[in-house]
Formats: sequence, structure tokens, C-alpha cells
Amino acid sequence: MPVGRVSLVGAGPGDPELWTVRALRRVQEADLVLYDALVDGESLRHVTRAQCFCVGKRAGRASVKQETINRLMIRGALHGKRVVRLKGGDPFVFGRGAEETLALTFAGIPFEVVPGVTTAVAAPELAGIPVTHRGMASGFLVVAGQTGAGLNRMLTSVSPGGVTLVVMMGLAARDEIARSLTGHGWPPGTPAAIVCAASTPKEWTWTGTLAELATAGPPEGVAGVIVVGEVVSVRDALAAGSARAADDEVRYGRS
Amino acid sequence: MPVGRVSLVGAGPGDPELWTVRALRRVQEADLVLYDALVDGESLRHVTRAQCFCVGKRAGRASVKQETINRLMIRGALHGKRVVRLKGGDPFVFGRGAEETLALTFAGIPFEVVPGVTTAVAAPELAGIPVTHRGMASGFLVVAGQTGAGLNRMLTSVSPGGVTLVVMMGLAARDEIARSLTGHGWPPGTPAAIVCAASTPKEWTWTGTLAELATAGPPEGVAGVIVVGEVVSVRDALAAGSARAADDEVRYGRS
Repeated sequence: MPVGRVSLVGAGPGDPELWTVRALRRVQEADLVLYDALVDGESLRHVTRAQCFCVGKRAGRASVKQETINRLMIRGALHGKRVVRLKGGDPFVFGRGAEETLALTFAGIPFEVVPGVTTAVAAPELAGIPVTHRGMASGFLVVAGQTGAGLNRMLTSVSPGGVTLVVMMGLAARDEIARSLTGHGWPPGTPAAIVCAASTPKEWTWTGTLAELATAGPPEGVAGVIVVGEVVSVRDALAAGSARAADDEVRYGRS
Repeated sequence: MPVGRVSLVGAGPGDPELWTVRALRRVQEADLVLYDALVDGESLRHVTRAQCFCVGKRAGRASVKQETINRLMIRGALHGKRVVRLKGGDPFVFGRGAEETLALTFAGIPFEVVPGVTTAVAAPELAGIPVTHRGMASGFLVVAGQTGAGLNRMLTSVSPGGVTLVVMMGLAARDEIARSLTGHGWPPGTPAAIVCAASTPKEWTWTGTLAELATAGPPEGVAGVIVVGEVVSVRDALAAGSARAADDEVRYGRS
């Protein structure tokens, strides 16, 4: 039997309209789809007749072990199936995508990687916050915010200000993150934001300052990113402009 | 006349299959498309009957001034047109996207931003290099590599190692970048890569060490990203695995 192949596909931040054209095509043609908890299973079943299994963490249940996911991909391909491993965001921004490609390559399974829209950039963007902005931030650092010794080391590896800081999977550690950064010299008044469930109907945004970060109350059970840097103020500038534009519309009768 | 609207759309690294589904839809429905030099104009004209103008730098000609681009977008929308501003990569990763949204908002023009696949992540990814990898890099810093005082400040804002460094628009400054990083304590043997024209037929990849970066000879006239960090070695591991898999195929008759 000819060996199938595995496509490691990024599904973007949530909205299926933010899948790439190639992602949609691979899902439509697939025999087997193994998808993360961040991917909307219902939208998935609307566009494909493939067998679809959620292998991510869901509602209290533990996620499927990485070795099991690897084995399912490999076994599917060895049975001649076109396997899609559909991951939230981009496959190579956290989420162990590279480990999966290494497992596939050492098992001799043909594979491809289909980049996706990374949530690190898109979540702030959809909330009106650019990760880079001329004169404000000419770079951005993306880190994972699981608690532990590594987090403080990551956060203090960059000089305060200058770059935008994006912390993924760090909502639970937001107090620790704020203390680590202010302790490292970031002014407590630095603008900060939290964006949860970007591009979905549950999208939720908070803005304030680094000192206030711990007081933000993001909804339970949704993924979110923390953004720290002057660029957060662009959101307010856009909102102010929109408000003025709305006034103008009323005043000048533009519709 | 009702005001139209402007969609700031990310076109990804180059291949139109890496447009998002929403990007494709917006382009198909557009009346006017203003696109960057990094976007393939021919693919564009295949999918839309909109007027399409390249406003990016091309073959020696200077790019259209930012104020002119802003004026074209605003005038189009005021004439009731559905305007798409199509930008390479993601609209908010360099490329002045935020400035364009501010110009639109202060002109009272309705707009939306459609995130794209950022070249900062996708170019390394398509070359087999993950920007993050467990035990190797738990974060990545993206900076713009135009020469000048700002570049050195950006490059030395992060501690050597630990995070992957991605430099966009920095090919011309690669010697300066290597010297700045080694001067700041990055080991000269740190793996480094250059990926040009990712996802296009002209894709070109070089790998070596930080010390050898200046000796790499990327093709003229194409955009590329520089990647510095241990993650570059994943590409070699994948290649070694693929080579072994190919041997196995010959040996065991797998096809």
C-alpha cells in the first residue's frame, strides 16, 4: 500500500475565514484530521468528510499524549491516508510542531508544513494593536508564559521598552509577569493589553497599564495573549479617530 | 454617495495559496486593489476584476509615497469603492500598516484589518526551521534590519541565545548584524540561516554560522529573512531524517 502523507497545518487564531487557502484545501481532501482544542470542530466538519478527532485539552479532560498523536499520524499515513494535523495559530509557534515533524521524518513519513496566521500577531492586530509601529516599536518579542524559572529568565532577557512584548499562554501568570517586568525596569505605567479568543464571537479585550495587569479579569477557560508596550496606545488612537469620524458623520450627514 | 471601505489585507510570504480565505474573498469582491511589490500581480489579476495598482518599489523605480497611498485609499473609499490594500506578510508586522489605519480612521473611512501569514515565521518554517522549539528556544525576537544606530540598539537589547532572532529586511546589513551580535556575546558558532523569496519558485536558503553570515551570497533583488539561533539545526535534523527515510524506501521497497 502506498504511504499517505501528513500535512501539519496552521489554523490561525480561530475564525475559519483566517485559514489559508491551502489549509482549506488540505482539510477538504483529507481522510483523517487530528485537531487541537483551539480549532472549531463544527466548522471543520462543515468542510470535510474526513474522520475528525480532537486531540487537544477540552473541558476538564486531559489532552491526548504527544506520543499518541505522533503514533496516530504515522499509522494513518502508513495506511495510505492523507492526514491533516490541524493546529491553532501557526504550527511552528509553540505547540510542539517541530517535534511532530521530527517524529514524522524519523518514521520515514512524507510531510509538509502549511504556515498559518499566528495568534501572537493576529490577536493584538484584531484589537487594533500593531506589534510594530514606526517611532514606537521596531521589533517584537514573543514568549510563552507558563510559570516557572524559565519565564523570569525570558522576560528579563530583553531591555525594558523598545520592543513590544507578546506573552502567549500567560494569563494565569499575569501577576508574576507584571512583577518580573517592573522589577526589571519596565515603567509600571507602560500600556498593556489582554486579548482573548481573538477573531471568535467570544473575543474579549482589556487595556490598562503594566501595574494594573494583575487586576484584569479575563474570562475563564479561553486562551489569550498579553501585550506590553507603547503600541497598545494605538488602539486608543484608532478608537478616538473612529469616535470623531462618527461625530462627523452625524454632523455632515455622511453615511 | 455611500462611503466604501478599505480592507488592509496581509498576503503572506508570496504563494497565493497562503492567502487567507478572507483575503481571497476581499480581493475577489474589490473595486480597487493597491498592492505591494512583494505581492504577485499576475496571480492577483487572475482572481479579481478590480483595478490593480502596484504601489511598491519595483525594478529600480521608487515606491509610491506613503501619503499618496493614503490619499488613493481614502479617495477610492469616498467614491464608494471597496478598496483592498494588499501587503506582503502581515499588515501590522513592519510595512507601515498601523500608520495606514490611523490615516483612515482620522479621515473617517470605515476599515478592517485582515491578518496574514507573517514572513517572519513562515520563511524559516518553509525552510524547516521552527522559531520556537522545546528545550532550544522558548521565544523569538523579530526586528527590522535597516542599517543605522537603531539596529545595533535592537540587536543588543536581548541577551545572547535563549530566543531565536529573526531579522527582516536585513540582508544588506548582514555583516554589521553578525559583528554586532558577536560583539554582544553571541558565540560565533551559533547556527544562522538566510531564507529568500520563501514559498515562491525563487526560494533560496543558506545555512551556516553567525561568523559565516557575511560570506553568504543571497540572490540580488529578492527579500529575505535572517534567522540566528540553535533552531536552525532542526533543518539539518529533518534533512538527515529524510535522507534516511529515502534509504529505507529503497531498502524496503516503500514508495
